Amino acid sequence: MMDNRFPFTRIVRGLPATVPFVGPEALERRRGEPFRVRVGANESAFGISPLAREAMFRAVERLSWYNDPENHEIRSAIAGFHGVPFENVSVGSGIDDLLGLVVRVFVEPGERVVTSLGAYPTFNYHVNGFGGLPHFVPYRDNRNDLEGLAEAAAKTDARLVYLSNPDNPTGTWHPAANIRAFERTLPDRCLLILDEAYSEFATQDAPPPMAPIRPRVIRMRTFSKAHGMAGARIGYAVADAVVVEALEKVRHHYGVNRVAQAGALASLEDTEFVASVVRSVAEGRTDYALLGEGLGLPTLPSATNFVAFDAGTVDRANTILDTLQRHGAFVRKPAAAPLDRFFRVTVGTPEERLLFAGILRTVLAAL
Amino acid sequence: MMDNRFPFTRIVRGLPATVPFVGPEALERRRGEPFRVRVGANESAFGISPLAREAMFRAVERLSWYNDPENHEIRSAIAGFHGVPFENVSVGSGIDDLLGLVVRVFVEPGERVVTSLGAYPTFNYHVNGFGGLPHFVPYRDNRNDLEGLAEAAAKTDARLVYLSNPDNPTGTWHPAANIRAFERTLPDRCLLILDEAYSEFATQDAPPPMAPIRPRVIRMRTFSKAHGMAGARIGYAVADAVVVEALEKVRHHYGVNRVAQAGALASLEDTEFVASVVRSVAEGRTDYALLGEGLGLPTLPSATNFVAFDAGTVDRANTILDTLQRHGAFVRKPAAAPLDRFFRVTVGTPEERLLFAGILRTVLAAL
Repeated sequence: MMDNRFPFTRIVRGLPATVPFVGPEALERRRGEPFRVRVGANESAFGISPLAREAMFRAVERLSWYNDPENHEIRSAIAGFHGVPFENVSVGSGIDDLLGLVVRVFVEPGERVVTSLGAYPTFNYHVNGFGGLPHFVPYRDNRNDLEGLAEAAAKTDARLVYLSNPDNPTGTWHPAANIRAFERTLPDRCLLILDEAYSEFATQDAPPPMAPIRPRVIRMRTFSKAHGMAGARIGYAVADAVVVEALEKVRHHYGVNRVAQAGALASLEDTEFVASVVRSVAEGRTDYALLGEGLGLPTLPSATNFVAFDAGTVDRANTILDTLQRHGAFVRKPAAAPLDRFFRVTVGTPEERLLFAGILRTVLAAL
Repeated sequence: MMDNRFPFTRIVRGLPATVPFVGPEALERRRGEPFRVRVGANESAFGISPLAREAMFRAVERLSWYNDPENHEIRSAIAGFHGVPFENVSVGSGIDDLLGLVVRVFVEPGERVVTSLGAYPTFNYHVNGFGGLPHFVPYRDNRNDLEGLAEAAAKTDARLVYLSNPDNPTGTWHPAANIRAFERTLPDRCLLILDEAYSEFATQDAPPPMAPIRPRVIRMRTFSKAHGMAGARIGYAVADAVVVEALEKVRHHYGVNRVAQAGALASLEDTEFVASVVRSVAEGRTDYALLGEGLGLPTLPSATNFVAFDAGTVDRANTILDTLQRHGAFVRKPAAAPLDRFFRVTVGTPEERLLFAGILRTVLAAL
């Protein structure tokens, strides 16, 4: 119950005091010591582009100046990169920021949105924060249930459907053609947020080009994963110009910092660097698959920079996770059925993978 | 009129396509060339702390990791700096971000807020963005009209009053004792946002300590001005713990980037650097006062890093501003009466001041 000395809005009075994620730093503060290996937040183990590093050093030197509130340079570069018009691109301080804006412009208090049960929690955080009502569709065969999502969208008259493809937290994916078919089944007054944060890693089935723009689809990308710039906070949406225009009317215009703008601009051009990260991640996924096979922990196929290990039962998965963390490995796991028997491990460097494998073997031996 | 193919919320449908500020970069793109001197956005001419620079370089090296979503280190340091508990501090990506959050948690659509006519436009942007109704009180004797603001707050049953002290865009200030008295006159269900972005420069009358916390006052500070980190995007609010808790429930948890966190932490400790910036700015204010005196453009006393020059009439002020910009000096001016006969110039380095003075003399000679 909130303190009624303060005139909070009705929505805020009803919000719980939860956060989408507890960061590894908070866990370390509770542990009293740093983790030995940080493979829980799908951060890139392969660093940043050397060109981006140089650009960001130069940006630090000019940090007394505000960032360009229009994000003009990076927005133009992104438009050019994808072959879409400038007015179809919106830049934000990460996909998290853009998810909040999209919810804000489309969801009235009391209206419905649809998402998979156990999908990205920050989307739900924003939906709750604006008084929307999330409707959850369970995963099916460890993938987003496209039929179930479309049915739920129609049944609940949803304003938005959230879908990440490739998916987090499973790493699985639907072929591009199936996503296109899915888009066409959505009701008229419903938009699709297609979160493609991991798209660079999807070597098995690349996402379709951005052009031509599909009016009812808002596609989101980030510099946090393959570009290795998670701490910089920059991502973007590609959408209908009318949608972008609406985001312009509510966004935090000075929200994307100058260092991130400069780094993203340089990193976008360093396609060779990104390709090398994608190759390194693919090697790591194979390592993890072999590791899981050897330890009786089958892994899901992954088109991302992480791998989900199947512990067989929820209890065993929870025990493994807790013990891993106690042994100094930062890892996360899904909380909701049927994915709750998995734990999720980010692809580390070869050294980190070796270290993680050692800790995992110790943990399993002691069970 | 918005495109009705899209199910935007009622509030968003009613929003105009305006932005709080047009950045100098946008003006440069229209001009087709860079400004010769950038003294329009109250950015610091005196750079960043060398300690902050080093800390930010190190942060760039670790940019593949997400920022701590709790901002724990910088939040603790700010609490320590001001001698207030940790739970009274909220960190955001600049005061702009925090203004948006405060409006969001307190203002229901259709409710009133009070602000001076011609005060910080980003506050009004957020109020409109959440469906609130700003009520404007004209400046009086080139200062915020405290009596008028308090009367308006009572009359309109306002949820929030916004006051910047020292003030932007005039540079003037009210003594700390008068602000305390003003706080006590506000109605029960009304909170005061006290924007102290320029407080370090207020050598004439320092703001009172942060402790003890006054429940109905939300004080805001930034690293954008005296700390010279405008492009980094970091600021904070000091407020009642219940208010901070409410902001926690809606804020963008990963919104404050890793470089800004590291830089702010180092800069906060570099009190010697900040003191030297404040001294340099005070010198610059004197320079501008003498310049204005010599040119028949009286200046307002300033407790900030900028000075308002009185052009005598609105038309003359607009002409001077346009001509300055055409001659390559980026300067801004208030648009609303009675402040619209002023133009506002940020304190530059001695070289920038000389350059600006030369351009201003040329402009006046040609009038």
